[in-house]
Amino acid sequence: MKIALAQLNYHIGNFDANEAKIIDCIAKAKAENADLVVFSELSISGYPPRDFLEFDDFINKCEQSVMQIAQYCNGIAAIVGAPRSNNSGKGKRLYNTAWFIADGEIKNLINKTLLPTYDIFDEYRYFEPNNQFEIIEYKGKRIALTICEDLWNVDDVPMYSINPMDELLPYEPELIINIAASPFHYKQAKIRQEVLRKNALKYNLPIYYVNHIGAQTELLFDGGSLAMNNKGELIEELKYFEEDFRIIDTEGEHSVIQQQSSTKIQLINDALIMGVRNYFEKLGFKKAILGLSGGIDSAVTLVLAVEALGKENVEAILLPSQYSSDHSIKDAEDLANNLGIKAHIIPIKSTYQSFEKTLEPYFSGLPFNIAEENLQARIRGVILMGFCNKFGHILLNTSNKSEAAVGYGTLYGDMNGGLSVLGDVYKTEVFELANYINRQEEIIPINSIIKPPSAELRPDQKDSDSLPDYDILDTILFEYIENRKGPNEIVEMGYEKAIVDRILKMVNTNEHKRYQTPPILRISSKAFGMGRRIPIVAKYLT
Amino acid sequence: MKIALAQLNYHIGNFDANEAKIIDCIAKAKAENADLVVFSELSISGYPPRDFLEFDDFINKCEQSVMQIAQYCNGIAAIVGAPRSNNSGKGKRLYNTAWFIADGEIKNLINKTLLPTYDIFDEYRYFEPNNQFEIIEYKGKRIALTICEDLWNVDDVPMYSINPMDELLPYEPELIINIAASPFHYKQAKIRQEVLRKNALKYNLPIYYVNHIGAQTELLFDGGSLAMNNKGELIEELKYFEEDFRIIDTEGEHSVIQQQSSTKIQLINDALIMGVRNYFEKLGFKKAILGLSGGIDSAVTLVLAVEALGKENVEAILLPSQYSSDHSIKDAEDLANNLGIKAHIIPIKSTYQSFEKTLEPYFSGLPFNIAEENLQARIRGVILMGFCNKFGHILLNTSNKSEAAVGYGTLYGDMNGGLSVLGDVYKTEVFELANYINRQEEIIPINSIIKPPSAELRPDQKDSDSLPDYDILDTILFEYIENRKGPNEIVEMGYEKAIVDRILKMVNTNEHKRYQTPPILRISSKAFGMGRRIPIVAKYLT
Repeated sequence: MKIALAQLNYHIGNFDANEAKIIDCIAKAKAENADLVVFSELSISGYPPRDFLEFDDFINKCEQSVMQIAQYCNGIAAIVGAPRSNNSGKGKRLYNTAWFIADGEIKNLINKTLLPTYDIFDEYRYFEPNNQFEIIEYKGKRIALTICEDLWNVDDVPMYSINPMDELLPYEPELIINIAASPFHYKQAKIRQEVLRKNALKYNLPIYYVNHIGAQTELLFDGGSLAMNNKGELIEELKYFEEDFRIIDTEGEHSVIQQQSSTKIQLINDALIMGVRNYFEKLGFKKAILGLSGGIDSAVTLVLAVEALGKENVEAILLPSQYSSDHSIKDAEDLANNLGIKAHIIPIKSTYQSFEKTLEPYFSGLPFNIAEENLQARIRGVILMGFCNKFGHILLNTSNKSEAAVGYGTLYGDMNGGLSVLGDVYKTEVFELANYINRQEEIIPINSIIKPPSAELRPDQKDSDSLPDYDILDTILFEYIENRKGPNEIVEMGYEKAIVDRILKMVNTNEHKRYQTPPILRISSKAFGMGRRIPIVAKYLT
Repeated sequence: MKIALAQLNYHIGNFDANEAKIIDCIAKAKAENADLVVFSELSISGYPPRDFLEFDDFINKCEQSVMQIAQYCNGIAAIVGAPRSNNSGKGKRLYNTAWFIADGEIKNLINKTLLPTYDIFDEYRYFEPNNQFEIIEYKGKRIALTICEDLWNVDDVPMYSINPMDELLPYEPELIINIAASPFHYKQAKIRQEVLRKNALKYNLPIYYVNHIGAQTELLFDGGSLAMNNKGELIEELKYFEEDFRIIDTEGEHSVIQQQSSTKIQLINDALIMGVRNYFEKLGFKKAILGLSGGIDSAVTLVLAVEALGKENVEAILLPSQYSSDHSIKDAEDLANNLGIKAHIIPIKSTYQSFEKTLEPYFSGLPFNIAEENLQARIRGVILMGFCNKFGHILLNTSNKSEAAVGYGTLYGDMNGGLSVLGDVYKTEVFELANYINRQEEIIPINSIIKPPSAELRPDQKDSDSLPDYDILDTILFEYIENRKGPNEIVEMGYEKAIVDRILKMVNTNEHKRYQTPPILRISSKAFGMGRRIPIVAKYLT
């Protein structure tokens, strides 16, 4: 049997576009004599459709779309993913279903059994888990059709009490197909293949796996669809971060290949570029703007944006205040020149003075403090948003994860933006990205990389005045955020108690700021945003 | 048996405070000869603890707190709620547990069976559902101990395939205790009693029910703990929106009482006041500030804030621009006078001109548009945040649900704030609130109520220039947001297709704005925020 793996970039709720892509791919697979073409989980709706699933109208449109696609499945079978109404008279309203279509008809409906409900996943919010198992028989082959998490219950402490493949084994399947929506983080591609390998070995079956690619707001899908033999060896691997299509003959001879390898920073770089590009494309915007400070965060964000959108679509604005150093302006200008992009210098001093005068009756006699610091950041925010409103740009946020964690950033100031590009990238990783960007030539001025980080909101300010070194800070943050370690556990790793307590307190007392930040492109296993849900009004480690 | 119902206001993660409250109540119950004192669901941690549940350190603190409390349970039994580690070797890491304590020891551990995972609830994210059932025997009584949702599987299309009470019936229970964390919306108190009544009647058993009170950020818990006889008749009902404590003798004679009745608007009023008060108390803040425009939204927000925090803790700032009408300033001043609060007038014209001048090289020759409108709103936002940063206020957001729905509001401008007071209140309901506030005397100037709503961001602007009348708008929004009706269904109700399509498109294309808004006090069954999760990058009804 010839199986086509179709790895596509869907758009949530864009039924016409998704349907057209799928129909095109069916035609292509048919033209190349495939017997079966496989699309990914919830390919009809895009993933994750979230609370659109609560609208009957949305579900109807999904079902209509599948019926439409079925018309094109003659002489070829297809598997698509779409939500489906649960009419059993009990349980959640929907199933997360793989629709097996052949001869223009729906032949089998396979519902997802294991519903991930953790981190960014909310599937039990919508779907009833499957508890009836059936095999698909097609062209003399018995196919175990599973959906993403259905193969993931392989931990030493299993999260679910059932394994769908155990239930399917009595039907003597000859191969496993898994349709997935497995989002990227920089360790995920390796983990994913490890999980699939465990299944291939446990059940002694080959696996054909189709993932999404493309960004859906903050979630990045990296693709990496594949075929694996029954020894858990990789025999085909589709591209990462690109649409791809591959036909594999189940009866053919296949040599074993190695997983495409990338460094962590290369993966992050590619993922962020795709994230920016898809955010703009899917919202129907072209042009980005950002505030360029001469520091490393805005420099890296700018380079990624230019990669994603093209230099003609990105503008930078330099917004110096009286506390900005000359070298910062020069570094920013050099970068804009290196990239060949439009850059404007708009000093904020006169507007700052106007606010000072306005507030003088109330602030007079009180010392310069965070109010005046934030004022500068907010004036910049107002000017950047003015450009967006006048010319139709989307403002890119340039904050990094370390800052977002400890609350170093001004709400309604430098925390503004339609999308946060680096909000899941620790400061130490931003440095690595900068070096990666400069791997062949000095695109980001070296001075932006080597000078001590500073917000430049008062004279001679440095991040290190009030924060530990970033390598210490980032390690403590990583242990707390990604690894959910408590203060005692982190202290036992060798960090000073006073520093640990202070940092965790900063993280928890700044939840209210993160609540109002733009969506953050997710590149780690625990990003701020939908995958990390912390109460604002709480008193834990504060 | 004498059962004490302890309806308390907990603080998430504030173990010392929660523990002290619980221990106090145990002493009080003991002094009044109660046999058993019942606290609500997850009383130890506060509800909902959300992702703090993923920290072992947090779970350890919960378990230590229960052990501490157990020391005080001599001569009296207690039921408290706390998360508990699942050591079974499979499933989610935790149970949502009711701990039955007597003689200083943990006697029974009852885990929650039905885990709400919809709207604002995420329980299956954390907890393994129970599937083992046991009865509690205490002082010769057989008690069916259940946790909140465990009694809620009473719909015609049941959401769960199991009813814990069905499993407990063979043990011949004599009464049901239910510990709950059932958040307020303005129809919920009635629904809640209906659900409990169905259980009392179905199982022919009396019910003792303990709910939370108090606000946890956006979630408002209204209390209304109660006792019901086996005919489903109410025999005791604790207060709404206040802590309360009541002892009921299971063997006593009880007359049937009526549920405390309030109008919808009275409930919303009381809920919002509690919400504002608790937000400040639990964050350790005292003082609120807001921008007072002379319009009805900021007027109602101000009155609620004064009720919640005291007039000495609330300041209003009037920020007129060249487009503000004289009557608006007068209306705002009159309200401040009526309330006896401090109000400042800070014109924004000179700062606006300074921005105009700064942007002139880029904007010159282009028509006045939303960029200039938003500029005014953002200058106001900057000034208000300046006050917050200088003096330690929290800014209250004054946007209503109708505006939030269609995107009438300026990001980083009038959408600023630590807390949105009216973000779940439709404009038509804001009018009702204003009339309710004025029920005895004219607190809000009548002119603020009767004049046509306007943002006053350009000459002679009115909301009705670009929106249908608010009664039509709000009905369409309600059908879409609360009832999840699709466009065709709403048109079939008798609304014009062009209007329906335009409004639903406005709702969906403004998801990116709502993503960055402050937490919204939830008073309806479907509020923007944690209970409504919509993708930003989507193309559905847009």
